[in-house]
Amino acid sequence: MKATELKDFSHLCVHTITTKPWTVEQAMEKYQAAGIKGISVWRDALEGRNISQTGDRIRTHGLEIVSLVRGGFFAAADAAGRQKSIEDNLRCIEEAALLGSPLIVLVCGAAIGQPLQVSRIQIKEGIEAVLPAAAKAGVKLAIEPLQPMYADTRSAINTLRQANDLAITFDSPFLGVAVDVYHVWWDPDLEKEIRRSAAHNCLFAFHVCDWLTPTRDMLNDRGLMGEGCIPLKEIREWMESAGFKGFNEVEIFSNRYWATDQDEFLEKIKEAYLQHV
Amino acid sequence: MKATELKDFSHLCVHTITTKPWTVEQAMEKYQAAGIKGISVWRDALEGRNISQTGDRIRTHGLEIVSLVRGGFFAAADAAGRQKSIEDNLRCIEEAALLGSPLIVLVCGAAIGQPLQVSRIQIKEGIEAVLPAAAKAGVKLAIEPLQPMYADTRSAINTLRQANDLAITFDSPFLGVAVDVYHVWWDPDLEKEIRRSAAHNCLFAFHVCDWLTPTRDMLNDRGLMGEGCIPLKEIREWMESAGFKGFNEVEIFSNRYWATDQDEFLEKIKEAYLQHV
Repeated sequence: MKATELKDFSHLCVHTITTKPWTVEQAMEKYQAAGIKGISVWRDALEGRNISQTGDRIRTHGLEIVSLVRGGFFAAADAAGRQKSIEDNLRCIEEAALLGSPLIVLVCGAAIGQPLQVSRIQIKEGIEAVLPAAAKAGVKLAIEPLQPMYADTRSAINTLRQANDLAITFDSPFLGVAVDVYHVWWDPDLEKEIRRSAAHNCLFAFHVCDWLTPTRDMLNDRGLMGEGCIPLKEIREWMESAGFKGFNEVEIFSNRYWATDQDEFLEKIKEAYLQHV
Repeated sequence: MKATELKDFSHLCVHTITTKPWTVEQAMEKYQAAGIKGISVWRDALEGRNISQTGDRIRTHGLEIVSLVRGGFFAAADAAGRQKSIEDNLRCIEEAALLGSPLIVLVCGAAIGQPLQVSRIQIKEGIEAVLPAAAKAGVKLAIEPLQPMYADTRSAINTLRQANDLAITFDSPFLGVAVDVYHVWWDPDLEKEIRRSAAHNCLFAFHVCDWLTPTRDMLNDRGLMGEGCIPLKEIREWMESAGFKGFNEVEIFSNRYWATDQDEFLEKIKEAYLQHV
């Protein structure tokens, strides 16, 4: 099966972080004007706002809220740190409910100097602690595996297989995974794990961008789709043939693009989306 | 089982690249004076030398040549590029034989813009093309899986499982793997794959350094052992309990350390080796 070409923006979602220089109010106006249909909201974009009203305002702009980004960071060296993280995740679930976001993306965390095995147990315990609140609020949680180069501080969950293993263990309709091509494109098990995830109804989200050569900054030098080596169409085909029908979310951290005119950048995103995703 | 503490330098090997500012002649003198017993020689260090005489000279310094670094880079967009790579690997095998190195480390390659699956097939074909020459020369080849952040240009082999799969397929005493902690420390399958590799007599080499937080350069900002988050003692324990009896090879690419006094750096390596490996 070959994925159908994308011909419109009905499945295009943009993360507010992608156009970081814009406030969430600017973002919703600009995305609407651009004909974009989905938005994933980063929590920092909500600071100082009435979250419920912001959610309503986003919807009046014809935008579907795809996810709230991000919860997680469950690993911590001491119990107080882990408790603080759980409380923050409970707040995040409240925020998602207020915003009207059906999903929270989890960057699961890693505590520097702590064995990854220990962080992985803490992540499991953290999810266990917050999942009932998520279910009660009707908010899904998506475990996002992160590229192994982030295993030191950001996530001890580094492959889709690990994310699936964890999600499947809980066997809850409120826990699944987020597939971000930047993190998993290299994985020889990717196609298989996408299918496995779908078979367990865990395939919750799909994030796109590209991997640049050379990558000049390990966090904020992601490429626009088509600028790098990630086989985007192939991975989207795997997602869709596994049954995924959600948004294609553009999540680009880029010092380079953030320094440019964001209107022009959004146009580039639309072009790149049709051509390369 | 807990790995025994390292009490001397009988299993310490240093890669010439680690002390890149030194010529191979300086390196062999300095390593000998420091009581180091093993050296892995990078090919660039041999440029302009009589390789056979250089090998003899290294041995008269009481140093065991552990490996020649590096062959590989089998992936290329066109047949001419792949043929060139095979010829270079055949030259590398000749150089190893002349030097008296029992082993060549393979960084397998990736061709930018080419699907990883295609690069992986080319890597297999490349190894197939050169393995008979290696066997004839009595030189072993070690497939080194590289951290996935190098999948764009350096290697489409990114986990020890992949390296083992490839090595085991050939079922040759001249093909195995090199475990470099920098590339594989994050992998939840690491211990299992080390055991699997050993069970197939494929566990040929062990490289140590550390992962720095933050990492400021994706290639040349490796840490000295103990400066980062890699569980070195645990991984060495896995290697040794699997039966590995070879050298612990210090391979550090570091703009930071290369800019310092190399005599002092070598002393730091020795201290870090006893304390953290």
